[in-house]
Amino acid sequence: VNAAQPRQTSVPIEAPAGGLHALIGRGDLAAAQEWVCGRPPWEVADALDRMEPRAAATAFRLLDTARALDVFEELKPSTQEAVLDIMRGNEFRDFVDALDPDDRARMLGELPAAVAQRVLAGLSPQERAMTAILLGYPDGSAGRRMTPQVVSLDDDMSVAAALRHVRATGNDAETIYTLPVVDGDGHLTGLVNLSELVLAADGVPVTDLVVTAPPCVRATDSAELAARLMADSNVLDLPVVDAADRLLGLITFDDAHEVIEGADSEDAARQGGSNPWAGHYMAVSVLQLARARVVWLVPLLLVSLLTVTVAYGFEEALEQVAALAIFIPLLIGTGGKVGTQASSACVRALAVGEVRPSDAIRVTVRECGAGLLLGTGLGVLAIGAGVLFAALSVAVVVGVSLLLICLLAALIGGLSPLGAKRLGIDPALVSAPVVTTLVDVLGLVIYFLVAKALLGV
Amino acid sequence: VNAAQPRQTSVPIEAPAGGLHALIGRGDLAAAQEWVCGRPPWEVADALDRMEPRAAATAFRLLDTARALDVFEELKPSTQEAVLDIMRGNEFRDFVDALDPDDRARMLGELPAAVAQRVLAGLSPQERAMTAILLGYPDGSAGRRMTPQVVSLDDDMSVAAALRHVRATGNDAETIYTLPVVDGDGHLTGLVNLSELVLAADGVPVTDLVVTAPPCVRATDSAELAARLMADSNVLDLPVVDAADRLLGLITFDDAHEVIEGADSEDAARQGGSNPWAGHYMAVSVLQLARARVVWLVPLLLVSLLTVTVAYGFEEALEQVAALAIFIPLLIGTGGKVGTQASSACVRALAVGEVRPSDAIRVTVRECGAGLLLGTGLGVLAIGAGVLFAALSVAVVVGVSLLLICLLAALIGGLSPLGAKRLGIDPALVSAPVVTTLVDVLGLVIYFLVAKALLGV
Repeated sequence: VNAAQPRQTSVPIEAPAGGLHALIGRGDLAAAQEWVCGRPPWEVADALDRMEPRAAATAFRLLDTARALDVFEELKPSTQEAVLDIMRGNEFRDFVDALDPDDRARMLGELPAAVAQRVLAGLSPQERAMTAILLGYPDGSAGRRMTPQVVSLDDDMSVAAALRHVRATGNDAETIYTLPVVDGDGHLTGLVNLSELVLAADGVPVTDLVVTAPPCVRATDSAELAARLMADSNVLDLPVVDAADRLLGLITFDDAHEVIEGADSEDAARQGGSNPWAGHYMAVSVLQLARARVVWLVPLLLVSLLTVTVAYGFEEALEQVAALAIFIPLLIGTGGKVGTQASSACVRALAVGEVRPSDAIRVTVRECGAGLLLGTGLGVLAIGAGVLFAALSVAVVVGVSLLLICLLAALIGGLSPLGAKRLGIDPALVSAPVVTTLVDVLGLVIYFLVAKALLGV
Repeated sequence: VNAAQPRQTSVPIEAPAGGLHALIGRGDLAAAQEWVCGRPPWEVADALDRMEPRAAATAFRLLDTARALDVFEELKPSTQEAVLDIMRGNEFRDFVDALDPDDRARMLGELPAAVAQRVLAGLSPQERAMTAILLGYPDGSAGRRMTPQVVSLDDDMSVAAALRHVRATGNDAETIYTLPVVDGDGHLTGLVNLSELVLAADGVPVTDLVVTAPPCVRATDSAELAARLMADSNVLDLPVVDAADRLLGLITFDDAHEVIEGADSEDAARQGGSNPWAGHYMAVSVLQLARARVVWLVPLLLVSLLTVTVAYGFEEALEQVAALAIFIPLLIGTGGKVGTQASSACVRALAVGEVRPSDAIRVTVRECGAGLLLGTGLGVLAIGAGVLFAALSVAVVVGVSLLLICLLAALIGGLSPLGAKRLGIDPALVSAPVVTTLVDVLGLVIYFLVAKALLGV
């Protein structure tokens, strides 16, 4: 092995892209085949996910059967769909039959119904049964993401017997790193880590190694809850149980990474004020991008019309003191920023479990405090800057308004994610665009009311 | 084991908080001790991270020595500092000596220098040497996060011999799931997964199981790059090598979770327009929260003063056509939203490796397309709404301006994260507040120029 070689696999994250893309583009299939056969599966999958679906399907056909499966399991659902689309007959049947049940279930859950039907019909009875069980759990649930093929231990085994059992039955399992211990009725009573089992002396009873009361989730819990629990509790694989605490399967560490990355990407899209899109940023069409965004822009534009209404209502004041108009962007812009800061902090704290809906009162106190501090500082600054452009009285109106707007914005930003969570809505929907729209409207009302009160216009 | 018990450990993410907090608050140390001794370490650590540092230190002292170490390693650095602060003499020395070298190095990197000195001085020579090696790598690097205690294999071993070697030497290692293979000079030539080793027959040569050219990183690469590579390539532990590809250590899967969670939390804070803060949202003081935010608000406020300057420069136009003023919030608000959508999409795509700086041209084309589509749709809508409040000519000015502003905003939002990355700046600094501030200023200029051109004011 060339000593410089291992290093290469970490390069693509930074390196110029387009190798495979360009080769397929100009139809150089021999060079493309060399490319896809010489790289690790996840890297090939990443390259395919970046391409137009049809080109990706073409490139996929260049893989030999064994590598094809490994690459397929790493693909995003939209690319998987394109790849399946061009397979037919026996080839298709053999292929979907060879997938891991949890990968198959995840894929089926995200494919259009017609394609999913075709996949299910192609399965052998045994694989179809296993897939049907996983598909029985709701989309996004822990049950969908678990592997049902688990090596479990009885707690009356010795270490030597347990190791023999693992070696005899482990080949079918997706993981043997985590070995759940179950009682006669299949209830989860604990788990043994493979490393402990390997390091223990042969004669030691397995009970000496059992982790009792391990973290676990119900199959109906969300996969994100499961993945966050895995990250928090540092477990490698997480047992999934039914309502009676019987063992159903395990969620493996690589799925936890994938679930968290997916959930954080969804949160990032929502926090930016657009719907999450399926698939790779570079592969999604411009139309899909625009659609994911316009569904938020149009309602927010309609709400923003309230700012026109408010400003229209105070047109007389604006005509009397024209200088009031020039501070509008500064005031509502700053308010929007304070609100955005508070909401993004609370959304993230909720996502990673640092804040819970029951913390509403403490969050209110904290955000009120931060809003008052920021509002006072920025208000004084605004008065100082305001006198450069307008009369002192107008500058004072601007400063006082800014203080009130900052306080309100911090409260809206901090509390709306908690409120959303309590209502069962994704807190990430309280995005910068949503907060700024609310603050725009309310901030204008505050500004004109303060102006009315202090200037008598 | 009570069958209902495993389930409990997944509850705290949703359940009401404050149990331990309240017990310490009213000085009920007996009940607090029962609380901290009856829960898994990560859950105790989470509860401590939520508390004021002094109260957390008090609660920490209720743990017995063995559990104290496990809990300590899960704490955030700010809480760790508070805990170390109240230990003295031998107790302190014994405690820091017993920590894992990588956990110690991480902690030392984030502690104030005076505390770090005290910790280093308290270590035994051997532990100090191991810690010094890790501390030799920059903060945030893969070298800082690796464990140097690795069980490596020679490639002339049989499976039986390799297993004997693992069982004999594995107790000191933080992980034995990944077994790097090195040549006589310590160069990494491949790795063996423990599960393959356990499942293989005794007589098989280890070379049959070796994964050649495994993903790996240099010690000086960033820990985030390493963690993202682990998530992408589905490896459990990642080898870390020096510039000559000699094996230095492994990054373990639990550290990868922690690094990614930390990096995503930092990105979320920056995307919301504030500095990331150290520690738990609930434990950080209001003053610290305000400070993390004001450092962005003040410069942005100063830039926003440009909006006042622009509006002031066009005051004559505003006086001639007062109706122009009432559409200002709508126009720049919508532009800010389009920009925020584009920037958050690109920042996330860069973070997870979907987009690379070399994709600038493709991103430009995509965001131009999306901006034009959105701008056209919203512009037509704005003309329709505008005639309800003002003359048709003013409404047309608003619609045309909105089209241009959307196009500009999508471009600024999409390209500035790429530009930042290319300049070596964190793309997440291109936050909603930064984008909206830029769009506010440029949007106003566009609006008034369009008004000048179409209305001749």
